[in-house]
Amino acid sequence: MKENLNFPYFMPTKIWFGPGSLEKLREEKLPGKKALIVISAGGSMKKLGYLDRLIDILKSRRVEYVVFDKILPNPIKKHVMEGAQIAREEECDFVIGLGGGSSIDSAKSIALMVKNDGDYWDYIVGGTGKGKKPEKGALPIVAITTTAGTGTEADPWTVITNEETNEKIGYGNEYTFPTLSIVDPELMLSVPPHLTAYQGFDAFFHAVEGYIANIANPVSDLYALKSVELIAKYLPICVKNGNDLIARTYVALANTLSGFVESTSSCTSEHSMEHALSAFHPELPHGAGLIMLSEAYHTFFASKIPDRYIQLAKVMGLDVDSLPEEEKPYAFIKALKKLQEECGVANLRMSDYGIKEDEIEKLAQNAIETMGGLFEMDRYKLSFDEVVEILRKAYK
Amino acid sequence: MKENLNFPYFMPTKIWFGPGSLEKLREEKLPGKKALIVISAGGSMKKLGYLDRLIDILKSRRVEYVVFDKILPNPIKKHVMEGAQIAREEECDFVIGLGGGSSIDSAKSIALMVKNDGDYWDYIVGGTGKGKKPEKGALPIVAITTTAGTGTEADPWTVITNEETNEKIGYGNEYTFPTLSIVDPELMLSVPPHLTAYQGFDAFFHAVEGYIANIANPVSDLYALKSVELIAKYLPICVKNGNDLIARTYVALANTLSGFVESTSSCTSEHSMEHALSAFHPELPHGAGLIMLSEAYHTFFASKIPDRYIQLAKVMGLDVDSLPEEEKPYAFIKALKKLQEECGVANLRMSDYGIKEDEIEKLAQNAIETMGGLFEMDRYKLSFDEVVEILRKAYK
Repeated sequence: MKENLNFPYFMPTKIWFGPGSLEKLREEKLPGKKALIVISAGGSMKKLGYLDRLIDILKSRRVEYVVFDKILPNPIKKHVMEGAQIAREEECDFVIGLGGGSSIDSAKSIALMVKNDGDYWDYIVGGTGKGKKPEKGALPIVAITTTAGTGTEADPWTVITNEETNEKIGYGNEYTFPTLSIVDPELMLSVPPHLTAYQGFDAFFHAVEGYIANIANPVSDLYALKSVELIAKYLPICVKNGNDLIARTYVALANTLSGFVESTSSCTSEHSMEHALSAFHPELPHGAGLIMLSEAYHTFFASKIPDRYIQLAKVMGLDVDSLPEEEKPYAFIKALKKLQEECGVANLRMSDYGIKEDEIEKLAQNAIETMGGLFEMDRYKLSFDEVVEILRKAYK
Repeated sequence: MKENLNFPYFMPTKIWFGPGSLEKLREEKLPGKKALIVISAGGSMKKLGYLDRLIDILKSRRVEYVVFDKILPNPIKKHVMEGAQIAREEECDFVIGLGGGSSIDSAKSIALMVKNDGDYWDYIVGGTGKGKKPEKGALPIVAITTTAGTGTEADPWTVITNEETNEKIGYGNEYTFPTLSIVDPELMLSVPPHLTAYQGFDAFFHAVEGYIANIANPVSDLYALKSVELIAKYLPICVKNGNDLIARTYVALANTLSGFVESTSSCTSEHSMEHALSAFHPELPHGAGLIMLSEAYHTFFASKIPDRYIQLAKVMGLDVDSLPEEEKPYAFIKALKKLQEECGVANLRMSDYGIKEDEIEKLAQNAIETMGGLFEMDRYKLSFDEVVEILRKAYK
């Protein structure tokens, strides 16, 4: 298969990476004088002391702040609108997302809605979104990530659920890249094993999908293969021993690289399908949904584009060359299942999250209607029936 | 050797890469309404029709322009000051560098001096530069590169010679990244074999130095190793057949990746030494100077940091594992010499460019005084005597 040698490259975010890098905020140029700090409703940023550390740094910089602490694990439009309203009233001139993907994505969407009128869904492309251009840009965004999963610190994407229409749609543009991101693996040490696994697999699938996408290019491939290699090697260690700072650092790096992948390539239809699952079942963690879909999805695509899957299996450490020809494309599936076992997530079932088998056609429909764009990124165009078939195979 | 897991990442330039990408300027957002177009004094941009193509595009976008066509192969401060004066008088609001590294670097420095008062050397860090902060930033810069050598389209650096003091110093900051870069390998097809080789080796050494520098990190390493791999594979093809668009494209990609390396890691003292050579002998092409220094320089460093050189030799296709232990670090030297032979540049001599052996101490002094910062990037701190020793070994 020929490489794609015509492509754009754009990832303008400044990133401080590494253990202890939160402290870089004491010196780094900040993009404003008053921040809206966006955190989850769960309270972990307070309990872990991260919010206090951030506030202490902001005070030392004489930067004012307002805390908005309502974000749900699958963040919703209502809170985007509410956060933007508060930021306007309080005259915040930048937004800080502190936490996992949900808080940072919400910060991005809030930053956009502070500057642009109307409803957030007016700007969404896909589903019932109206695709309006956000002419006025967005407030500057600072991302401080405390998980290694979404890569959002290194890409423009924000995934928000419209709770009125059951649509979970990824959206982004040149304004929704963070201006500045902090990736400090020390802040990730406290993530419990099952979330470490779900988040790590989310990063893993961003890289894998970005590698099999039809807009993949030699630069995105560099990031994707390295990300897959690092996750295969270090994620099981993080799941087993959350305090291993070196392993956490490499998984954090893999996650940032998977953000680069999302900036320079794209997710594929696997993500559309998962968004359908977690739009209707918001208690389902995104990474868990991806894991449930993955064997069926990638077995299907391995048969269509074997070369790419062989490369993926190789960077996961498999000796693919010694396999019989017909098994080579599926070596990746073997490595994927092994990684799931090592991370204790080999037996996730959709039914455990209340998903019913008779929902499958509705889910397939939702995937295609709300996130149809990602189906255009597949190297093989799936029919509706094939989407249903993949979902059926994945169902248990 | 432990990897460096604490590092900043910043490369905000938007790049359109690939054959035909010059045409992207017809749609891409341009950062202003009136451009100063900076080109070389040599006339090639006119002869090859590239200037007319650019002007045609600007007219179609209703963007005004002024052409400044005085840039020398080793660009000088006088032309930076003159270009900035013209841009101010003509009220240009952005600067386009069209050509090789000399024109794009000059465009960067001009963009800075349009906005900041005084003399360019007031802002230079190192040598007799006064290290003043350019508080007012720079005009937006568009880089259209017609060579594959300096990587300047993907980094903040600009190398200008102070013709009054014989100082050739690299300089850059957050404002001197191009806003937009076009890397169109079709524009590189006409570069003659010897310049193709010199420029390709310049890119090669940016990647190699960025890989052996003490601030190298896992992300810069990705770029560096891929750049070295691609140049080893494709540069000899470009030298032999300049019209091979695929080979040109891969060398262009390697060059852009080497720019990424310069944005995320650093050159080392090899570049300081070369700048001394071409500051005193401006007719010496920078890439040729690097080639002349390289065997002595890298033989010295291979003995100090063998691991890194073994990786470099591997991505250049050498079967290092089968070599006796004591030869492994020097496998890279073998690959380097082979690449130089394949590119017809194995027998360059300093004396052919008028460099005298009794200049060596003066050159060593100049390297340390004007570009001392890069000596700080070496994993082994060179003494003055060792710099002299390397220069002496390189001299013929």
